[in-house]
Amino acid sequence: MAHKKSHPTALHEKDGIEQPEIVSSDSVAQIRQYRRQQPTSEQLIAGILSGDKIALSRAITLIESTSTTHLEKANEIIKACLPYANKSVRVGITGVPGVGKSTFIEAFGKYLTGLGKKVAVLAVDPSSSISHGSILGDKTRMEELVKDENAYIRPSASGESLGGVARKTRETIILCEACGFDTILIETVGVGQSETAVHSMVDFFLLLNLAGAGDELQGIKRGIMEMADAIVINKADGDNIKRARLAKTEYNRALHLFPMKNSGWSPKVTTCSALTQEGIPDVWNTIEEYFTLTRENGYFHQKRKEQNQYWLLETINEQLKQNFYNHPDIQILLEENKKAVQNNEISPFAAAKLLLDNYFK
Amino acid sequence: MAHKKSHPTALHEKDGIEQPEIVSSDSVAQIRQYRRQQPTSEQLIAGILSGDKIALSRAITLIESTSTTHLEKANEIIKACLPYANKSVRVGITGVPGVGKSTFIEAFGKYLTGLGKKVAVLAVDPSSSISHGSILGDKTRMEELVKDENAYIRPSASGESLGGVARKTRETIILCEACGFDTILIETVGVGQSETAVHSMVDFFLLLNLAGAGDELQGIKRGIMEMADAIVINKADGDNIKRARLAKTEYNRALHLFPMKNSGWSPKVTTCSALTQEGIPDVWNTIEEYFTLTRENGYFHQKRKEQNQYWLLETINEQLKQNFYNHPDIQILLEENKKAVQNNEISPFAAAKLLLDNYFK
Repeated sequence: MAHKKSHPTALHEKDGIEQPEIVSSDSVAQIRQYRRQQPTSEQLIAGILSGDKIALSRAITLIESTSTTHLEKANEIIKACLPYANKSVRVGITGVPGVGKSTFIEAFGKYLTGLGKKVAVLAVDPSSSISHGSILGDKTRMEELVKDENAYIRPSASGESLGGVARKTRETIILCEACGFDTILIETVGVGQSETAVHSMVDFFLLLNLAGAGDELQGIKRGIMEMADAIVINKADGDNIKRARLAKTEYNRALHLFPMKNSGWSPKVTTCSALTQEGIPDVWNTIEEYFTLTRENGYFHQKRKEQNQYWLLETINEQLKQNFYNHPDIQILLEENKKAVQNNEISPFAAAKLLLDNYFK
Repeated sequence: MAHKKSHPTALHEKDGIEQPEIVSSDSVAQIRQYRRQQPTSEQLIAGILSGDKIALSRAITLIESTSTTHLEKANEIIKACLPYANKSVRVGITGVPGVGKSTFIEAFGKYLTGLGKKVAVLAVDPSSSISHGSILGDKTRMEELVKDENAYIRPSASGESLGGVARKTRETIILCEACGFDTILIETVGVGQSETAVHSMVDFFLLLNLAGAGDELQGIKRGIMEMADAIVINKADGDNIKRARLAKTEYNRALHLFPMKNSGWSPKVTTCSALTQEGIPDVWNTIEEYFTLTRENGYFHQKRKEQNQYWLLETINEQLKQNFYNHPDIQILLEENKKAVQNNEISPFAAAKLLLDNYFK
């Protein structure tokens, strides 16, 4: 039906004869019908296993959906893909905004596809659920890699919580691996807890940093440097080369102060320029060295087993908390008790007991 | 009744006439009755508020008890003490075994009581529940401080979990403060998660370290150095003085690499000798400087508020987990699913969902 103005405006027009529909109702119904024709799980599984990126994208969309039907379908697909997964290397890449992560991943990814690898680039960025953007949303920043048929780029899933985003990314890894991608790069923005989440889903953790002197560690969240298996100083080009070398020395000294890692690996510091490609092969050589070592000493396999266990328990613990804190009675009681605790009217432990007794009764 | 052997042994004796009891049943009943005469909560509260160390000890024993009646009584006492608590400074002291924590605390505690302060020394050491010992169990290592009437030393509570030990210690702080102790030193052994727990209950966190060159940071658990408000290099005496000074420079350089703390405080490095007392006053001066700064900028009060909130939520989260993981059905199901996850038969997230559905149904 044509839209009729129900109240006069300054631009009031006289009612003319009713116009025919521009799009016929029949066509609309047809288009809707067509869009509803989602491929079956079997079709998507077959597509993924044959390396079809469109099937992969559609399956990932199911993982990211909030509809229960979609999630059931997603679980079916993940289960079918699991036996074909776990055959890639997973590299986490972090660094504060401005460090040149996208440019680095573009250069690094191109180098890897040049070596004959199939590269998937994923992201974990819980903030994207607020801004409705994503660190990888602006795909034009990786325009070369996007066009590469041996690369697959997927922006960060959105979600209410880091736990949700992380779960979606981790399941996405499984599908990418089943789809034949042998090198998974997972980008995360250098803020908050997302590094810990990414660290728990990758084999190798790379910290990207800027060349600069003296205060170059200031921007890094506590603990992130300790998680790094390599620190790569980006933008080591032009006038920056000297400063990058200085930074390398500083970082090497700082890393030396940390205790030995369980992997038996001593973190390396390298410099590179995503612009000139200088140093990009070194990054991959370092990663390969790491894999040779940890596959030999059994750490690689051990870590993956531990990561699986971690995600099992982490998911349970998260859900237990959500159930408690989303309970309407508990929410009221918690607010009251938080105030009482702040005013020293009740000890935190007595308040906790009160809330728990109420929840479990 | 005298015990009679019910089966013959190689050392079989002929039955003689029945011997009379060595202790009369009446006396036993009397002793039991006497022991049962516990002071009332009111008596203990009055005792604590008047500065009676025996009442304090008895109340702490109630906190540490596993009996429900005792815990109810303990909660009553804590509630009554809360308005008189929160008036001390709380200093956490950590360091790897062998660093000389006990000797340092003895020297430091004596120095503080010499300044007219009332010092309580507590400990958080979850391992003591396994060894049934305690880092402070051997009180003879602090023989001077033990005899000091302005000091109170209490070994670590024992408990099944760090959470339990931490709760008990935190409640003990409240009672000590209500008892008039204005300086609370909390010792923890430099292993595992106990530093984080202690860090969440103190105002100032001190890392004790050994003088040594080059590799002096090796023994420190990740993250502990970042929590420290001061690093004190102990045993800076005799031949060690030069090495201690070198270590001081190294630590200062390392601390410089960490980001600014929310407190606005730049961590300090000092050297001291618990043996010669050299440098002990400097440690206290540093702590006082910190308190002046953080009381002025409001961080002191803010941190305590956050700590209270932390313990409220932490206790709830711990208990939610315990309830889940101690459920007999869940325990069986969890074992099965852990195996399935390891063999890549099910994703960690699908397994978690299965367990949670079972728990909440």
